[in-house]
Amino acid sequence: MDIGFLGLGRMGQAMAANLVKAGHTVRVWNRSPEAANGIEGATRVATAAEAFRGDAAITMLADDAALRSVIVEGGLLDGAERPAVHVSMSTVAVALARELAPIHERAGVAYVAAPVFGRPEAAANAALNIVAAGDDAAITKVQPLLDAMGAKTWRFGSEPSAANAVKLAGNFMIVSAIEAMGEASAFAEGHGVSKAALLDLLTNTLFASPVYKGYGALIAEDRYEPPGFTLRLGAKDIRLVLAAAEGAGVPMPFASVLRDNLIDAISHGDGERDFAALATVAARRSGQS
Amino acid sequence: MDIGFLGLGRMGQAMAANLVKAGHTVRVWNRSPEAANGIEGATRVATAAEAFRGDAAITMLADDAALRSVIVEGGLLDGAERPAVHVSMSTVAVALARELAPIHERAGVAYVAAPVFGRPEAAANAALNIVAAGDDAAITKVQPLLDAMGAKTWRFGSEPSAANAVKLAGNFMIVSAIEAMGEASAFAEGHGVSKAALLDLLTNTLFASPVYKGYGALIAEDRYEPPGFTLRLGAKDIRLVLAAAEGAGVPMPFASVLRDNLIDAISHGDGERDFAALATVAARRSGQS
Amino acid sequence: MDIGFLGLGRMGQAMAANLVKAGHTVRVWNRSPEAANGIEGATRVATAAEAFRGDAAITMLADDAALRSVIVEGGLLDGAERPAVHVSMSTVAVALARELAPIHERAGVAYVAAPVFGRPEAAANAALNIVAAGDDAAITKVQPLLDAMGAKTWRFGSEPSAANAVKLAGNFMIVSAIEAMGEASAFAEGHGVSKAALLDLLTNTLFASPVYKGYGALIAEDRYEPPGFTLRLGAKDIRLVLAAAEGAGVPMPFASVLRDNLIDAISHGDGERDFAALATVAARRSGQS
Amino acid sequence: MDIGFLGLGRMGQAMAANLVKAGHTVRVWNRSPEAANGIEGATRVATAAEAFRGDAAITMLADDAALRSVIVEGGLLDGAERPAVHVSMSTVAVALARELAPIHERAGVAYVAAPVFGRPEAAANAALNIVAAGDDAAITKVQPLLDAMGAKTWRFGSEPSAANAVKLAGNFMIVSAIEAMGEASAFAEGHGVSKAALLDLLTNTLFASPVYKGYGALIAEDRYEPPGFTLRLGAKDIRLVLAAAEGAGVPMPFASVLRDNLIDAISHGDGERDFAALATVAARRSGQS
Repeated sequence: MDIGFLGLGRMGQAMAANLVKAGHTVRVWNRSPEAANGIEGATRVATAAEAFRGDAAITMLADDAALRSVIVEGGLLDGAERPAVHVSMSTVAVALARELAPIHERAGVAYVAAPVFGRPEAAANAALNIVAAGDDAAITKVQPLLDAMGAKTWRFGSEPSAANAVKLAGNFMIVSAIEAMGEASAFAEGHGVSKAALLDLLTNTLFASPVYKGYGALIAEDRYEPPGFTLRLGAKDIRLVLAAAEGAGVPMPFASVLRDNLIDAISHGDGERDFAALATVAARRSGQS
Repeated sequence: MDIGFLGLGRMGQAMAANLVKAGHTVRVWNRSPEAANGIEGATRVATAAEAFRGDAAITMLADDAALRSVIVEGGLLDGAERPAVHVSMSTVAVALARELAPIHERAGVAYVAAPVFGRPEAAANAALNIVAAGDDAAITKVQPLLDAMGAKTWRFGSEPSAANAVKLAGNFMIVSAIEAMGEASAFAEGHGVSKAALLDLLTNTLFASPVYKGYGALIAEDRYEPPGFTLRLGAKDIRLVLAAAEGAGVPMPFASVLRDNLIDAISHGDGERDFAALATVAARRSGQS
Repeated sequence: MDIGFLGLGRMGQAMAANLVKAGHTVRVWNRSPEAANGIEGATRVATAAEAFRGDAAITMLADDAALRSVIVEGGLLDGAERPAVHVSMSTVAVALARELAPIHERAGVAYVAAPVFGRPEAAANAALNIVAAGDDAAITKVQPLLDAMGAKTWRFGSEPSAANAVKLAGNFMIVSAIEAMGEASAFAEGHGVSKAALLDLLTNTLFASPVYKGYGALIAEDRYEPPGFTLRLGAKDIRLVLAAAEGAGVPMPFASVLRDNLIDAISHGDGERDFAALATVAARRSGQS
Repeated sequence: MDIGFLGLGRMGQAMAANLVKAGHTVRVWNRSPEAANGIEGATRVATAAEAFRGDAAITMLADDAALRSVIVEGGLLDGAERPAVHVSMSTVAVALARELAPIHERAGVAYVAAPVFGRPEAAANAALNIVAAGDDAAITKVQPLLDAMGAKTWRFGSEPSAANAVKLAGNFMIVSAIEAMGEASAFAEGHGVSKAALLDLLTNTLFASPVYKGYGALIAEDRYEPPGFTLRLGAKDIRLVLAAAEGAGVPMPFASVLRDNLIDAISHGDGERDFAALATVAARRSGQS
């Protein structure tokens, strides 16, 4: 297929490379030009408009502001050569997805929301879990693209924002797992048990899953640098969760605790460390560090 | 080995049966006599004192009060024929473990704390994860017994109460996982996504672990009866967690949320339903049910 | 003085009337025209621009969006006849105040933030407490206006946004007081003590202050209609508090609880009832109602 | 009247002195003998039994353990010369009050629960607010004693434990007020506003009540030593609140936040400082101190 790819952060680069590898013709664009160097086999274009055309255009932009700025304020939907399908893979607000859907409909561009679960290594290995929602025929059309980037696509119906809600729900559960490990670790240490021993037991038995094993290892070793995903970006996700929860009338006391503890962490200088550094808050509050 | 087993609830019965199966001579005792009927090959004794002797005595009693009443107030440690080792497998307060250790020492009985992770089916299949702490030689001595009951024994040093702290930390993480799934489910439903679809995705990918799969299935189907483990008993565990956290100077805001939500659930009639019913609190607070 | 007054809700009408009463020449404007009828002695003008001129212009608009739309997007600061001072009395975000200050400076209009504490009756009686920040000379210039509307002006320095922070801090404390009374009431009722009796004692002794007496009386009688100030508007204030807290790196667990409980209340149909209805959440969660 | 007074801490000494001043015959007793020196006109007795007799005996003991140890375990209710009425003025658990009432009934001693609001200065000035519950005739009989110690007696029916519930509800509201001021102060400081200025405004207007003025002044000046009432004792009260809330099925998320923050404060060395030091937690978590 003839596609454009907008947004070449660590995730985007790996995903675009996999599309090239799968034989697709890929035009890539990034706001700051230096990033696009490394994608062999892709054609670099100078403007977003040149990327936003063809059979499908994929956006993997940093956040709500970037997506809004490029697509809406950039006037891409009014362009002469619009893509048949826009696959929006960024983690953005549910409200933004709701706002974008009708704008795309008016422009005659199918809008598919398809955020992903997985860190950069998973993206590199085409092992992402992709959460897709939007017009069924449009998703089917881009399914080969999704298959080139992920291990599996999970469909969540025809309302695009549903996919964003699922993504945020999953992220909320990830952060909750980190916090639970953090509190349990402080509790154990307070009783003379090393957190490494505790987490070794729990993440190899009851909680033997990728999230617990991955973050558990970082917490056990207090290894928060270099960051895989910064705590500050994680705080942004919880902000999106809380906003969407309020929109849907859902009290989320765990998310509220996460918010406060993430602020605490940032105010103690952990914003640019790995997200797992959230676990240090409970230890500090206990006077253990 | 010649052993006594005190406490024949659902867990205790399965564990004692596995000890018999492994070839040990087992005297069993239960406060209310009807329970002990079903353990073929074990000798039923009429008094706790008759069980509390031999190479080792294992207690799997309901709670702090039961353990204290049988062992301390019952005067078993003053008995003529005390066991060489007392393996205390109940989930009890860290403070109680701290209190019992020196009493046993004075009585010349080795005290091993060995609480377990696993529901009754795991007990029946000798698949428990056993958390043991206490005198190393004593643990080694009873290791064949632990092996008969569990898949693996995780040792946590020589201070018995450390094992109880680990058990409580693990239980806290389990309840946190239920709450996180409950909030995420209400969030998803509030955005038109079925919680069953959400949990299917998450418990088969990022959270593909026993705890999430087990409780996730119950939540997805709103299947809270019959209870595997009642919510009211779960609330007791969180009470133990909070008490031990305070003792160690550890603020645990997640545990505090759990406490409030468990009270909410009990006040709405869910005390005798499965622990997973905690997940209904977020839905009810959102006006979804 | 020759002044304009923009925004004639219940608060604005009472405040503008007091300015007329004090002898000032007042041009009034409201987006929806019907509201301005009742202010005798004031000149009604058809456009915001006609009001936004003279010695000073006062805005008492509904929220951030209204203030931004009228002043910034409406282009008032580019108008030919700008006022010497803009006194912004709405409760708005700290971030908006930060954004507006330099815009005004460039336009050569002094920007004074002067939000108020007090309900409509206090506004009618010129009994408001006014929190003012901005250029000292500018505040001094408009002091006669403030004196006509309030009992006292409390100055908080030259950075306008400081006044908005103080206003939000005060509102947070008010909502915290309501929640504390709500939880204490459910606690008392759960022990067979009527909340009316409890609040009668406490609001006449330790907590004998306007906020506790006022909201306490509503809670004691479950009198939530008609609303003096709706719960939905209160929820907006807490949203502003949380956003500003995050901006300043301040975890506020009480504010987080308030957020969740306000959502709970709105999801149970209390959005348009009096703010004091927040107190019903604790009772409902206890199964008392 | 001929009375005994047990428990001569700072509060008890002042209260007993006022009883002497009012013309009553007072026998005083304290576990550690040195305390009773200073009460002129009272007769010091060597045993609790000598104090626990006469027309009425008043207990103002430190906590649940002290009250239980002296009255129940000390066998005072089996004594030959029991008092007609036992006025129990300590702040104790609701559950303890429930347990003591029937024991007294069997012993033929009327049991009146009469905890007080007020710090030592209020006790010295006979300005306490007394919360009384129990048999109406018994309260009426001891009313002259209560009048000698307090400004007003608030009656809460015939079930003694109701008075303890009211006392705990009030204490909960006091601690909530401290926390609200603490969070608001950190919020203000984070926006460049001094907490002293903020609290000056709020505690002289909306929150012009004894609790806010008293604690607000301490917070404004960071004056936590010497303690009027230690934070550790305050933490004990919140523990009683939470236990009684659970007993009555009432979720209290504010009380849960208080619990965690009090633990945080104690873990940072503030246990023996004034209760108002709770307000430092929000500042520390914000990285302000």
